Amino acid sequence: MSMIKVGIIGSTGYTGKKLVELLLNHPFVEITYLSSQRYKNTFYSSVYPEFRKKLNLKCETLSLDKVCKKSDIIFLCVPHTTSMEITPHLLKKNKKVIDLSADYRIKNPRIYKKFYKVMHKDLGNLKKSVYGLPEFFKEEIKDADLVSNPGCYSTVVLLSILPLIMEDVIKESVFIDAKSGASGAGRKLQEGLLYCEINENIKCYSPFVHRHIPEMEEVIYRLTKKTVKLNFVPHILPLSSGIMVDIYIRLKKFLTSRDLKKIYSVYSSQPFVRICEDLPSLKNVVGTNFCDIGMRILKEEKILLVVGVIDNLIKGAGGQAIQNMNIISGLSQTEGLM
Amino acid sequence: MSMIKVGIIGSTGYTGKKLVELLLNHPFVEITYLSSQRYKNTFYSSVYPEFRKKLNLKCETLSLDKVCKKSDIIFLCVPHTTSMEITPHLLKKNKKVIDLSADYRIKNPRIYKKFYKVMHKDLGNLKKSVYGLPEFFKEEIKDADLVSNPGCYSTVVLLSILPLIMEDVIKESVFIDAKSGASGAGRKLQEGLLYCEINENIKCYSPFVHRHIPEMEEVIYRLTKKTVKLNFVPHILPLSSGIMVDIYIRLKKFLTSRDLKKIYSVYSSQPFVRICEDLPSLKNVVGTNFCDIGMRILKEEKILLVVGVIDNLIKGAGGQAIQNMNIISGLSQTEGLM
Amino acid sequence: MSMIKVGIIGSTGYTGKKLVELLLNHPFVEITYLSSQRYKNTFYSSVYPEFRKKLNLKCETLSLDKVCKKSDIIFLCVPHTTSMEITPHLLKKNKKVIDLSADYRIKNPRIYKKFYKVMHKDLGNLKKSVYGLPEFFKEEIKDADLVSNPGCYSTVVLLSILPLIMEDVIKESVFIDAKSGASGAGRKLQEGLLYCEINENIKCYSPFVHRHIPEMEEVIYRLTKKTVKLNFVPHILPLSSGIMVDIYIRLKKFLTSRDLKKIYSVYSSQPFVRICEDLPSLKNVVGTNFCDIGMRILKEEKILLVVGVIDNLIKGAGGQAIQNMNIISGLSQTEGLM
Amino acid sequence: MSMIKVGIIGSTGYTGKKLVELLLNHPFVEITYLSSQRYKNTFYSSVYPEFRKKLNLKCETLSLDKVCKKSDIIFLCVPHTTSMEITPHLLKKNKKVIDLSADYRIKNPRIYKKFYKVMHKDLGNLKKSVYGLPEFFKEEIKDADLVSNPGCYSTVVLLSILPLIMEDVIKESVFIDAKSGASGAGRKLQEGLLYCEINENIKCYSPFVHRHIPEMEEVIYRLTKKTVKLNFVPHILPLSSGIMVDIYIRLKKFLTSRDLKKIYSVYSSQPFVRICEDLPSLKNVVGTNFCDIGMRILKEEKILLVVGVIDNLIKGAGGQAIQNMNIISGLSQTEGLM
Repeated sequence: MSMIKVGIIGSTGYTGKKLVELLLNHPFVEITYLSSQRYKNTFYSSVYPEFRKKLNLKCETLSLDKVCKKSDIIFLCVPHTTSMEITPHLLKKNKKVIDLSADYRIKNPRIYKKFYKVMHKDLGNLKKSVYGLPEFFKEEIKDADLVSNPGCYSTVVLLSILPLIMEDVIKESVFIDAKSGASGAGRKLQEGLLYCEINENIKCYSPFVHRHIPEMEEVIYRLTKKTVKLNFVPHILPLSSGIMVDIYIRLKKFLTSRDLKKIYSVYSSQPFVRICEDLPSLKNVVGTNFCDIGMRILKEEKILLVVGVIDNLIKGAGGQAIQNMNIISGLSQTEGLM
Repeated sequence: MSMIKVGIIGSTGYTGKKLVELLLNHPFVEITYLSSQRYKNTFYSSVYPEFRKKLNLKCETLSLDKVCKKSDIIFLCVPHTTSMEITPHLLKKNKKVIDLSADYRIKNPRIYKKFYKVMHKDLGNLKKSVYGLPEFFKEEIKDADLVSNPGCYSTVVLLSILPLIMEDVIKESVFIDAKSGASGAGRKLQEGLLYCEINENIKCYSPFVHRHIPEMEEVIYRLTKKTVKLNFVPHILPLSSGIMVDIYIRLKKFLTSRDLKKIYSVYSSQPFVRICEDLPSLKNVVGTNFCDIGMRILKEEKILLVVGVIDNLIKGAGGQAIQNMNIISGLSQTEGLM
Repeated sequence: MSMIKVGIIGSTGYTGKKLVELLLNHPFVEITYLSSQRYKNTFYSSVYPEFRKKLNLKCETLSLDKVCKKSDIIFLCVPHTTSMEITPHLLKKNKKVIDLSADYRIKNPRIYKKFYKVMHKDLGNLKKSVYGLPEFFKEEIKDADLVSNPGCYSTVVLLSILPLIMEDVIKESVFIDAKSGASGAGRKLQEGLLYCEINENIKCYSPFVHRHIPEMEEVIYRLTKKTVKLNFVPHILPLSSGIMVDIYIRLKKFLTSRDLKKIYSVYSSQPFVRICEDLPSLKNVVGTNFCDIGMRILKEEKILLVVGVIDNLIKGAGGQAIQNMNIISGLSQTEGLM
Repeated sequence: MSMIKVGIIGSTGYTGKKLVELLLNHPFVEITYLSSQRYKNTFYSSVYPEFRKKLNLKCETLSLDKVCKKSDIIFLCVPHTTSMEITPHLLKKNKKVIDLSADYRIKNPRIYKKFYKVMHKDLGNLKKSVYGLPEFFKEEIKDADLVSNPGCYSTVVLLSILPLIMEDVIKESVFIDAKSGASGAGRKLQEGLLYCEINENIKCYSPFVHRHIPEMEEVIYRLTKKTVKLNFVPHILPLSSGIMVDIYIRLKKFLTSRDLKKIYSVYSSQPFVRICEDLPSLKNVVGTNFCDIGMRILKEEKILLVVGVIDNLIKGAGGQAIQNMNIISGLSQTEGLM
């Protein structure tokens, strides 16, 4: 087949970099354009020397028109609010856009404003955008012009919990204790992200108010017409990559292992979700596009623990973006990702 | 005052080592005896070179009689089951014993058997032993001959949750997501404790069935005559020392910050418990005997998050043991620990 | 082209595991046999859950005859001394063998005995074996039946220093300060490899007497007929993967940057060696088969620092083994490795 | 004895913080003043919550006159160039100053200018300042008004190598491969200090041109009248605290272990230098004021490896500053440091 021409706007953050790395392994992709807010007219391999002998492209600053001329599909790895400035121009040129920012994740503009502190500026495309969680939105993604790539926490929480909500077995609001490596916070110059602040430390941040909460709750409602409150508490841990979520659930009725197996069999043909016999370890998914999910029942209490793990930069960002690109392009979901 | 002569049986595990280190800073302690299952007739500073120019003692293998002759107070840092073999001999010689093993933590021998898989062999002393959590058992510790030093998880969970239980504000069983550094597992030769297995990884272990659960539930009942089920799920993280517990609680009624302040004012005169305005970071207690506790209320849901942190080898083991020794010896609790 | 059938004897150590992982990405390889001393008749994905949905093979314990029937090329990831027991049988069956142990690295059996404390038992094949450093032995590897894959330290030191020795610019014995992640020591149950022993620590081991020294010195002599003494001092650091070597060299005469560029241009067509403008960081090669090399001259002193970095499990083991397999099989060196 | 009143200017960087922490353990010190460029009129325990219930002081911004009224001894933990602005005022008020910046370390103002890129502004005090390496300058420190606390690398390199230089056994310029934890770089907002940049990485920086080189060479000459060139190459490693230096030395003549023992016996009465039988591990000194030194001879080559380790923030900064304060104040060197 002919090569897909791909442009990446915002290619030098941790997300952009991982996306570039993964796209280089894709047999049907040619990267045609890279940009960076910070590095202009600079070889990508000068910014990141690990790309020498692998990628011979410069970070450029072309007009969006010119970017569109060079690319079939454009990935946006830019901060939120920037994305909704750029996207309309790209879509007008009939380009496919996969947006890794938060701008098109929340359909309700009031909720967007509440959590991101700005008015949404592109309501038309917001409405048309498709949520890029292929395990649940594959059909919509196929025909989408604009895919909004889910948040990292949202990806692993939704995959872990949606089958239970669909079966309507959850009794009340759930508790989610999330544990993330430092790359989840991006490559920002903040004191809290210095090595000596994170090493040998654990920190809890934004308990109950993290921006991925409304995103998850909205997607749950859209898919199931059920309202499930997520009491979500994220932590930053001394490791580079990966997220584990522990979801504590009170069940309406007791479930057997067999019941659970059946409930999660919804993923049996999904290439990137693995249901584990035991609780999953983070290591098993770091460096991959897999989401591993395991459960443990506490029988006498009708309590269920679900543990999900992903690599936040792959299944939680760049890998999932490529999975979406594969679907849009009519390729196998796993192309370039195994 | 005259020096307290202290013997340590089992001095070369992580717990024993930390205890030795802390005792060397104590102005009123003289270490008179050290033993080790593994290193016999070996200078402690050969086993651990960091003790050169600080401690000039050998690990010996004297009879318990001779140990008693040399020591006023004896710390046991031995595996469970070993402790209940040794303790009766020491108590007969009228020595004070501070046991850092699990043998005297659970008063109910059937529960002990269920969780530790052996019959308890020293029921008489089990009955008389005092649970060494000074914030709640100080008066009993004063006169105790045998203090059972609490488990590391138990220490931080109990300190974090007991004030709430005393006020009877908890609605149903609570969820506890615990995060521990690798030293919590001891210095054992297990594959799962190798550097490459723990680094860049998170693992969940013994969910809902950890041995500290019955210990905590029993202490809660003893103190409050209330039964609170603890759904406890521990994790091992890539750091050496420290424990954070996130306790997720559904409240009977809504509490204000002022209510919480009042409830936790039970610790106002406790030197080693600090109630934080924000949620505590692990780093703030590593290397100290402090337990830091913070809370966050989710008003509309009557949900409360309590986060507690300790250094597992200090407040969770050796430091608390010294705090107990100070109390037994009529010293200030903080002596040698600040 | 038809698939290469590959067997791996000793597939569950860190080296074997990385080899399996890399071979799964190789478009022309089919893994037909896996064995493990420890896990018998066990699914590989039970031993290592990260291989679920990727590899559906069991660790078997077939006779060598049967292994030969299933495989074209056999990789040995076994301890030294085991390898020289197995290899003759495989070669007799006309199989190609790539040995990742130390058994065939040192041609001189007396030196082998001195450093590995056993007599060599397979002198015939030792003589015929080819040293698997493709950048210098590609022609021999093409026709080899038995390739001895170099030691991890040897790989990076030799690649970093050989061009200088060939130009005869080194004045006297060199100093090599090597820094390795913990995986270099293998998945052994040793106290020194526990997380708490390696984390926040640096340890120097086997200074001047490491087993890779005679291997390197012998290869240098074989290639250049020059004797260069390597004063080699390795350290273990708190990270999982990767080696950096700092080589301190006194030069016979002053060299300019241009001279150095010319000297190292020997690698200009080598796909896996990258000469850097700056000194290389470890991160740039971890997860890849690259060896990055940088230099810094101290003009007034005729002193040269050469810094080389590799991933010890890839270019230092499994990746290089596949590079050798590619050469033997007439494939591009980079097949499956980019 | 009466308490020493101590002020700290620049108390919230990593060095200042460690100094505060150590001073709180000193039985004869009262901290009377803390300042910070960044946190003004803020409780120290708000900046660093680990100090709650331990230190009840605010960071203030008093005039230097007022600072002098409150303090007997003033520690400066400020950036270089700031220190030489402040020091003259403090000395005029007859205060003792211990400067942890680089401003008074190099006596030769031309060298200072070359390496720090500014003219020295306080030549008079520069001349009178005493280099605060107590193992070699104790007598001068006793009577000093201004002590210049050595650089972290300088401390461990000088302690490791000076005995050899005094005996005149070193043949030519030496190679020093230094390995430092991330706290050595301070609490600066630089991309290179982010967790994800340092974790699982090793980086070499400022090879042959680090600012501690002229400091070390000057002190060597001052003490021994010998010129020894130090080819110094530092690295940053994924750990928080600690420095290891590997010094590679060619000897004029062969030395036995006994010779070495005698040469290093110069430290036999020094409380904070420990000569090791084996090569020292970093862990043994982290958290302490010790410098551990070990050696390994390569007989046939007349080559000597000396390995020295310290905690960069303690013996390499705050601990050594207190050691100097003890000497100035007529206390035992070890007061508050054991």
